[in-house]
Amino acid sequence: MNELQNNSIVIDCLQYANWSPKIFKQMHEGGVDCIHVTIAYHENFRETILNLEKWNSYFLNYPDLIVHAHSVADIIKAQHENKTAIIFGFQNPSPIEDDIGLVEIWKKLGIKFMQLTYNNQSLLATGCYENNDTGITRMGKEVIKEMNRVGMVIDMSHSSEISTLEAIEFSSRPISITHANPEFWHPAKRNKSNTILKKLSKNGGMIGFSLYPHHLKNGSNCELNDFCKMIADTVDMIGIECIGIGSDLCQDQPDNVVEWMRNGRWTKEKDFGEGTSENPGFPDQPNWFKNNTDFKNIKTGLNDYGFSEEEIKDIMGRNWLNFFKKSF
Amino acid sequence: MNELQNNSIVIDCLQYANWSPKIFKQMHEGGVDCIHVTIAYHENFRETILNLEKWNSYFLNYPDLIVHAHSVADIIKAQHENKTAIIFGFQNPSPIEDDIGLVEIWKKLGIKFMQLTYNNQSLLATGCYENNDTGITRMGKEVIKEMNRVGMVIDMSHSSEISTLEAIEFSSRPISITHANPEFWHPAKRNKSNTILKKLSKNGGMIGFSLYPHHLKNGSNCELNDFCKMIADTVDMIGIECIGIGSDLCQDQPDNVVEWMRNGRWTKEKDFGEGTSENPGFPDQPNWFKNNTDFKNIKTGLNDYGFSEEEIKDIMGRNWLNFFKKSF
Repeated sequence: MNELQNNSIVIDCLQYANWSPKIFKQMHEGGVDCIHVTIAYHENFRETILNLEKWNSYFLNYPDLIVHAHSVADIIKAQHENKTAIIFGFQNPSPIEDDIGLVEIWKKLGIKFMQLTYNNQSLLATGCYENNDTGITRMGKEVIKEMNRVGMVIDMSHSSEISTLEAIEFSSRPISITHANPEFWHPAKRNKSNTILKKLSKNGGMIGFSLYPHHLKNGSNCELNDFCKMIADTVDMIGIECIGIGSDLCQDQPDNVVEWMRNGRWTKEKDFGEGTSENPGFPDQPNWFKNNTDFKNIKTGLNDYGFSEEEIKDIMGRNWLNFFKKSF
Repeated sequence: MNELQNNSIVIDCLQYANWSPKIFKQMHEGGVDCIHVTIAYHENFRETILNLEKWNSYFLNYPDLIVHAHSVADIIKAQHENKTAIIFGFQNPSPIEDDIGLVEIWKKLGIKFMQLTYNNQSLLATGCYENNDTGITRMGKEVIKEMNRVGMVIDMSHSSEISTLEAIEFSSRPISITHANPEFWHPAKRNKSNTILKKLSKNGGMIGFSLYPHHLKNGSNCELNDFCKMIADTVDMIGIECIGIGSDLCQDQPDNVVEWMRNGRWTKEKDFGEGTSENPGFPDQPNWFKNNTDFKNIKTGLNDYGFSEEEIKDIMGRNWLNFFKKSF
């Protein structure tokens, strides 16, 4: 039970779907062994507990399809039992409110990842949509130490340049960018500079490539071959061992969810984030990645592009698993 | 590591001290292997999380003396490492508020016991100080099922007659009365009827004998021999396998704590509970049981009364350990 099946595993290091038995079955059908799911964007402590309760009811109701994983051993066990291992994360530090003691509480409840910001300035760091990037705050430095101590992974997917570079520097453990792409391929506030990618990889960190159209060259019309070329170019720059997938798939979500992601409770004027007033909703997924059954398309694309079988295994999940071994 | 040292263990199934390194050292000195500590009386969910955070800092600061135990294996490991295993419980269901989903959340955070009431009517059952005993409520029945499912022990120490009898009946697992004495020995609202004791033991439940003076014959002047005779008389009635110690020790607490225990946020007029307006504070402990170094006195008392060595081991902790094996 300590061994991977075929020395291979499929891990998606970020999704926020409108969860349903249909989607759980698609994970199974698509051979997705482990998914990092977001359980908080703007929720405070008590509200996030309610989200956890919802997941407890999913685990209770669909025990043949999904299981809550606390460790790498749990993930491997799930693979052997033909279930998808679910690991939890936050896209914002709102669930710890102003209370550092909540980091350990959340760790005990199985939270594996926490972003220090979600687009805006937080109590900990600066988000990628702010004009002024003041880096990691006083509380941010303390929370990084505490996350390092308890074994919760720092995620800077939605953070600004300086804050991300400082997080890499201040953290005694490798950090993650669970879902974003390189800026050199598609300039977007959410995509990452070469400086960040190089420093991240040098320090043992990981980036998960996003399939969210606003992060893709040509958006919804992005071609699979272009996505695979971007992966190849990134590998050329920073090596293969620090890359994986973090699809940012938001399957079946109604448009009011993306509106809430962008606006939370922080603004009275509507913010359109990566969208526009003409296109305020979720963008269409590329036709080759619409749901959890489409991971095979990425594998095929990587193979067609010329990646070796072992390299494809690394990208599709083995690198994330190795990172989890060091991090949890 | 699966075996008890000398096939013997000391477990106190309830304390609420004003925790300090002094007390942690006394536990160690007194050879107390495991203590069930109360972490909530009237606190709501968020407030109880703060209490848990306080305990996390104790575990961090005194790792040589105490350790949080989640299982019987953890308790036995602690004994081998010469530490006191701490298990958590609530004396009131206030930490689950009106939300049954919080039972599983608390279970994951290591809560092993929950009282369905603390003296007053709760959302779940009737407390021992109410005039009208309406038994287990609709929500109470659902929470009993959920506690049974996740493995959290029902504690009826502060509950009324009918509610306690119904809890025993409705629960599919044995329940506990962690800290109380028999009414036949000392009539008090908090002590338990023969009917309860017989039904409790018949269903595999446990009672922990209290050393809190208001539960003792002659209060602070109770004699050790009288306490041991009470134990012998209880054994004669219900057998030895369902009894243990639940001292209710509130060492070093200032009197405003007992005032808060009694009044919480539910009354504007002061309630004196088991005390009186002339004696509103904590009563003095009997001189033979003042702190965690005094468990040896109980052992001596039981021996002098005529209990065998094996019977003393059962009473001092082995029975609780067997109950934990079935219950956690």
